[in-house]
Amino acid sequence: MGKYPTSPLAPAAFPALPVIDGVRFATVEAGVRYKGRRDVMLALLDEGSVMAGVFTRSATRAAPVLDCQAKIGLDGSGPAAIVVNSGNANAFTGKNGVTATKAVTRAAAEALGLDEGRVFTSSTGVIGEPLPHERVTAKLGELKEALDPGKIEEAARAIMTTDTFPKGASAEVMVDGKTVKIAGIAKGSGMIAPDMATMLVYVFTDAVVERSVLQDMLSTLTDVTFNCITVDSDTSTSDTLLMGATGTSGARVTAESTAFIDALRGVMLDLAHQVVKDGEGATKFVEVHVSGAASDADAKTHAMAIANSPLIKTAIAGEDPNWGRVVMAIGKSGAAADRDLLSIRFGDVLVAENGWVSPDYREEQGAALMKQQEITISVDLGLGGGTATVWTCDLTHGYISINADYRS
Amino acid sequence: MGKYPTSPLAPAAFPALPVIDGVRFATVEAGVRYKGRRDVMLALLDEGSVMAGVFTRSATRAAPVLDCQAKIGLDGSGPAAIVVNSGNANAFTGKNGVTATKAVTRAAAEALGLDEGRVFTSSTGVIGEPLPHERVTAKLGELKEALDPGKIEEAARAIMTTDTFPKGASAEVMVDGKTVKIAGIAKGSGMIAPDMATMLVYVFTDAVVERSVLQDMLSTLTDVTFNCITVDSDTSTSDTLLMGATGTSGARVTAESTAFIDALRGVMLDLAHQVVKDGEGATKFVEVHVSGAASDADAKTHAMAIANSPLIKTAIAGEDPNWGRVVMAIGKSGAAADRDLLSIRFGDVLVAENGWVSPDYREEQGAALMKQQEITISVDLGLGGGTATVWTCDLTHGYISINADYRS
Repeated sequence: MGKYPTSPLAPAAFPALPVIDGVRFATVEAGVRYKGRRDVMLALLDEGSVMAGVFTRSATRAAPVLDCQAKIGLDGSGPAAIVVNSGNANAFTGKNGVTATKAVTRAAAEALGLDEGRVFTSSTGVIGEPLPHERVTAKLGELKEALDPGKIEEAARAIMTTDTFPKGASAEVMVDGKTVKIAGIAKGSGMIAPDMATMLVYVFTDAVVERSVLQDMLSTLTDVTFNCITVDSDTSTSDTLLMGATGTSGARVTAESTAFIDALRGVMLDLAHQVVKDGEGATKFVEVHVSGAASDADAKTHAMAIANSPLIKTAIAGEDPNWGRVVMAIGKSGAAADRDLLSIRFGDVLVAENGWVSPDYREEQGAALMKQQEITISVDLGLGGGTATVWTCDLTHGYISINADYRS
Repeated sequence: MGKYPTSPLAPAAFPALPVIDGVRFATVEAGVRYKGRRDVMLALLDEGSVMAGVFTRSATRAAPVLDCQAKIGLDGSGPAAIVVNSGNANAFTGKNGVTATKAVTRAAAEALGLDEGRVFTSSTGVIGEPLPHERVTAKLGELKEALDPGKIEEAARAIMTTDTFPKGASAEVMVDGKTVKIAGIAKGSGMIAPDMATMLVYVFTDAVVERSVLQDMLSTLTDVTFNCITVDSDTSTSDTLLMGATGTSGARVTAESTAFIDALRGVMLDLAHQVVKDGEGATKFVEVHVSGAASDADAKTHAMAIANSPLIKTAIAGEDPNWGRVVMAIGKSGAAADRDLLSIRFGDVLVAENGWVSPDYREEQGAALMKQQEITISVDLGLGGGTATVWTCDLTHGYISINADYRS
């Protein structure tokens, strides 16, 4: 942290996030691994809060993830806590991983007077080393004393590992004539070895919502937000998204509350975009839009093939409007495509159509577009109604430096 | 070509390849795109030769590939020709692609007195620009005059695009008391934009073999050779492997000729390894071996996830024995895995087992191994009998420079 310069794609400042009544935050210097910075955060949600979560699909998930997954499906109405440490991922630590997770959740339950089934933990940082859990548990009293509704930015900073900026987003929306607030923080996706690309996201709202409704909403929206971003196709063993609804606004949200759903999607998408913009070495933010596919699933397969292609990502880094590589990625994706029905646009410029370069396209147009910091690649397959949009960044010398050169 | 230094992994010299009776080669400077070098090669196989082929699975295949595929399944006993140009891939050129391919195959058939169904062409180089086919056809008379059984190395050089060295391999094997020879050449996988990662391979033998037997053999062996290498997970629209058997040795090969099959596998694997060793920016050659998987297919899925992971490939470039990234890749691959049953070796050194770092492992051991030019990563999943071996190279600043910086 601090070793690499702030991403050129970072927002100018951390946004002003609204206070969510019923949630308080605290952070502390526990010295898990880093020195001279806050590395543990506690979020405490008042009694009556509803929790939902989405987790990595990795087959080698870390112990805290497995623990959260076991708890997230349970109904519960007591207070709830989220405890997150940076510096150590407690991943691939064998039986120690379970022991450490248990030690933290048990101690937090005792210190805060909670049911242990309502204590959720995440760990991010170095893997393969036992989590010095006593450094976390020793600070629980101090954390409890420091709890404050206004400390969400402090929390966003405490969970950073190799991030070059803290990430936050919020929304306010009217539900049943009442204002409902949503605020979220995230970390990712710096991956300086031996850390991994862990993405952690915590979102809070004061809406009144049933657990199963919130869970369905979160899962569905994850598919069109966090599951539509990629930096380098690698997947963390610790990715975690937790959401808590305190109900303090008194406004009831259901599966039909489209205004709330839209607002939540906006917060999640904003955080997802910030994660991409902090991708290692990123200098360009890229939206890939695929339409005309045989199905939405096919569209996403094509879009992710484009977004993950090293040849496309290096071309973008080189500001090269290389539509031939886009054709290549579509061809290799495995989803249905017809070379001669494809059309490809960079920004608004039609580059290729009818299986060939567009007769009106001039290379200077594409070259000018590629100089921009935010680039859109649109592909229409001409086959059906399937669409998808995903986001990625370019692949630069910075990525290699961060991930390969740190020992030299 | 010549713009980048020869790969540090290149063999000391082009190997001495045996003459395959019944095949003659010629090359010429046609000026398709490059100046001052030979850029078209002709291989002419005598009457009675049997042809087989394997092609890219890309959905956006180039016109010459589609033309070869349509012809390769036909029986035929007349002479056969392979015409290959470098400098222009004749890919994503719309209807022009078909016209250009047809122009070359028709003219070659006339000039050489062949059935047009026995003329196979490949094109490699820039995409999206019409192939100036008249530059190729204008040289057919000159090519015919120059045909010589000893010019296979010249042929290997004429098909190069961004390759930093020509690639050849051979074997001799006894079948029914007679010596059978196999000789092959390949190009790939330099990918300087706007070129693509085209791999072209041509293998010749003097064995007597039925077409369907040769085709089955080639397809089966491709799965364990060329389909087990990856440089950056990107797939060309033009990948082509053609094999011709002239029958001049008089030695009959069948599906049970294990000595011949082993020899052919050896030639194909040698060429496949050379392609990886010419991967853009490669400084390390990496073998990934997976055992103990639930099935061979699962083993290959895990092996390719490891071989394609940018985080692993950059760690290798940085000489970092980062076994945590191997755990990550296994977790994300989608194939079955149990974190706590995994064991991971770098070379002969046991690095991780029982879901954690091995108690006997010392970081210095791993660090010493990673300094070598050829590195083996072995993973045992502890689940079943599935195995797979794949090969890749590291991901370095050289890759970024070749693929991103050429415009700067």
